[in-house]
Order: sequence, then structure tokens, then C-alpha cells
Amino acid sequence: MIAIVGRGNVATHLFEALSNKTEVCMVNPRTLDSLPLDADIILISVSDNAISEIAKKIPQSDAIIAHTSGSIPLEALDTSHNRTGVFYPLQTFTKGVSLDYREIPFFIEGSSPEVIKKLKNLGSLISNNVNMADSEQRKKLHLASVFACNFTNALAGISKQILEEAGIDFSTLIPLMKQTVNKLENLTPEKAQTGPAVRGDSIVIDTHLKMLENQPEFQKIYSLLTQFIKNGQI
Amino acid sequence: MIAIVGRGNVATHLFEALSNKTEVCMVNPRTLDSLPLDADIILISVSDNAISEIAKKIPQSDAIIAHTSGSIPLEALDTSHNRTGVFYPLQTFTKGVSLDYREIPFFIEGSSPEVIKKLKNLGSLISNNVNMADSEQRKKLHLASVFACNFTNALAGISKQILEEAGIDFSTLIPLMKQTVNKLENLTPEKAQTGPAVRGDSIVIDTHLKMLENQPEFQKIYSLLTQFIKNGQI
Repeated sequence: MIAIVGRGNVATHLFEALSNKTEVCMVNPRTLDSLPLDADIILISVSDNAISEIAKKIPQSDAIIAHTSGSIPLEALDTSHNRTGVFYPLQTFTKGVSLDYREIPFFIEGSSPEVIKKLKNLGSLISNNVNMADSEQRKKLHLASVFACNFTNALAGISKQILEEAGIDFSTLIPLMKQTVNKLENLTPEKAQTGPAVRGDSIVIDTHLKMLENQPEFQKIYSLLTQFIKNGQI
Repeated sequence: MIAIVGRGNVATHLFEALSNKTEVCMVNPRTLDSLPLDADIILISVSDNAISEIAKKIPQSDAIIAHTSGSIPLEALDTSHNRTGVFYPLQTFTKGVSLDYREIPFFIEGSSPEVIKKLKNLGSLISNNVNMADSEQRKKLHLASVFACNFTNALAGISKQILEEAGIDFSTLIPLMKQTVNKLENLTPEKAQTGPAVRGDSIVIDTHLKMLENQPEFQKIYSLLTQFIKNGQI
């Protein structure tokens, strides 16, 4: 029996992914009142700053206690339990948006080879992509994903606002964004880079900066990323 | 007969896309020596700053003269020809990387309804997504695509470097990046935003900034985009 403590996006998606593969239940993190005493693995899937506190409230048992966070070290669970682990899915979860779970990379850490094995088996139930990562590696994975996902989405938000001024629907950019990612399956970002910055096309760059004069925040981001690409730092 | 003047990424891809749909030839932009006198449409697909010059060198004829640039106004072709247009594909072209052309949005502008009709017909040979855009709209499309494509690729480059430090292959981020784009088919960027900045998770943000202390350029980009998201500007 797998118990998922939490009710946010990650908890909900993990429950959905596991529910037709194994016996699984969701547990309210505030009360823990439905926590099954015979759980084999208890996944704590709550906000980072609540993980330790919830772990302390879980009664000691033979269960493996694992969290699902990119940023929190394994040791955060140590104080209250012996068999601890991390079960980190590298993905952006949004309620109501379905996912192909088999493609999601999971990163496992565990307090013993036996814990690692059990968490790997759990990951393999839903994903073809189960890996190991220690707490330092996981922190870097999380940081990298902020650039690749969260910031990419923010850039899409800027694009949308620019297109709105021209009366053009944002959806027109989706094929371009898909191809931007698809290229990275075969090319490094350095080789995949296109656009005025990498060409050193200062006429276009100056025109764009001028177009953004009334949007100083967009202009700052444009300048910084253009300079970064021009400097050959990607 | 369609003549494509150029030999860069866009010219090569347009030639490939059109070659099994209609009669098409590629013309060396330096010499123009193989330019067919009976061409119906001449597509000038060269770097922005060479477009006007090449247009002037093309002998006057009944052909439609069109360029394929996002940034150059239609008027850049006016001085030397009567029937002028723009045939702008919104996509990132890299030699050797194949594409599903039917999904590429094309944006058309023309000096007369007849020119517009002919360029639309040309676009429809290869794409299901042919639209109109005047020069101002096209400039905004190009600017938006710099954020959505060129800058997104640069962020991927940063992610790759962060993962390299942890000995993790960049390919592990591809499913996350794909889902980041897929979500935007159904959600606005505002609703799709996840991560520490939108959650206001200052502990994670401070940890990330500290991790980037030895990479001041990455740190600057992290700060600026985090602030942008925190301010609710996406």
C-alpha cells in the first residue's frame, strides 16, 4: 500500500498515475487521519517548508518515508524515521492537465540499498525513466528545470503580450515553440541557437529594443538575454 | 516557376518544402546567374541587410518579388518592382533538421489583392496555416518569436551547463520542456506558470541564487526573470 500525503498538483498527479498500477491512497496532510498503518511507502508531497514538520507527525513504523521535492535534502526526513528516501519527478504539474507519465524522469535517493530498490520499483510502475540522484544533483536538476520550464513559460507570457498588441493569437507561436524543443533532441543548445543575437544582427536588435521602449521590463530581459547569447555564453 | 534567391537555412528549407509540390529552383544570390526569366514568384531569402540590394539587382519583369523576413517592411522592395510581397514563415530553421511544414504558420503581405492571392496559394501548397500580417504585425511576430524561441533556447543552454556540473545529461530535461510547451495549447502562460517564483518561495529562490554565485550571468538572468514572475507581469 502506497500512501500519498498531500493534495497539491504533484500529489494529485502521482495518485492518478499510481492508482491503476498499485494500491494507493491520498492522505490529508493537515490531519493525517486516514494514514494507513500498514503502508509500505509514505510519499510526502507537500510544500517544501512543510515536509519536515509532516514527517515528524507521521508515527514511526516499517514504512519508507519519502518526499517528492527537488530542493529538500534527504536528511530533512532523518530525525524522525530510519528508512527514508526521495522520489522526485522532474515535471511541471498543473491540475487538470494530463501527462504521459511514462516519459517523466524520476530521480531516486534512499537511506539504504533496500529503500532505493523499493523506490525504483515504485517509479518503474509509472515511468520508463527512473534514475538515481543524490541531494546535490537533485538541487541542480531543480535549478536547471527553473530555467528550462518556469522561465521558458515566463518568456511565452511576454510573447503573448507582444502578440496581443498586434491582434494576433498566441497559439500561432506553438509550432515554433515545439520545434525549438524538438531541435534539442538532436542538437546542443549552442548549435540550435538562431535569431538576431547569435547572428550579431544589431539593426534588428536595436529595432526590437526600440519597440519595447514602453515595456521596460521586457526590454531589460531582451537586453540581458541578447547580451548573453552575443557573448557566446550559451 | 518559383525562384528562391538565397542559400541559407530558410532558403534551403523552403526549397525542400516546395520541391515536390511545384516547379522551383534555387538561385545564387551573389551572381543571380540562374534566375529564370519566366519565374512567377521570386522569393528573396537572404540576410535582412542584403534584401534591398538584391531586389534592385533583379531585372524588372511580371514576376512577384517577395522576401521572407520578419523584420523588413514590404516597402523595402518597392523602389525596384511593382508587384511585391512578403512570405514569412514563423519557424526556427536549422540545416539538417527536418520539419513538419504543414504546421508552420506563414504570414503574407502583398502590394495588391492579386499578389496576396498568389502568395497565399503558394503558402497553401506547403502549410495548413497561412495568414495575413502587415509589416507592423510581422515585426511584432518576429519580436515575440525571439522571446519564445531564441531566448528559450538560450535558457536551455544555461540548464545544460548547470546539469553538466552535476554529471547529468541534458536530454533528461526534454520531457519537461515538451510539457512546458504542450501545456500552452490549453492554458495561458499566466495559468501555466509553476515554480518557486510564482509560489513566492523565497527559501528556494535564495538557495538557487547562492548556487549561482560563481556564474554571475546566470544569476542575473535568474534574478530578473524571478522578479518578473513575482511581480505578476507574465
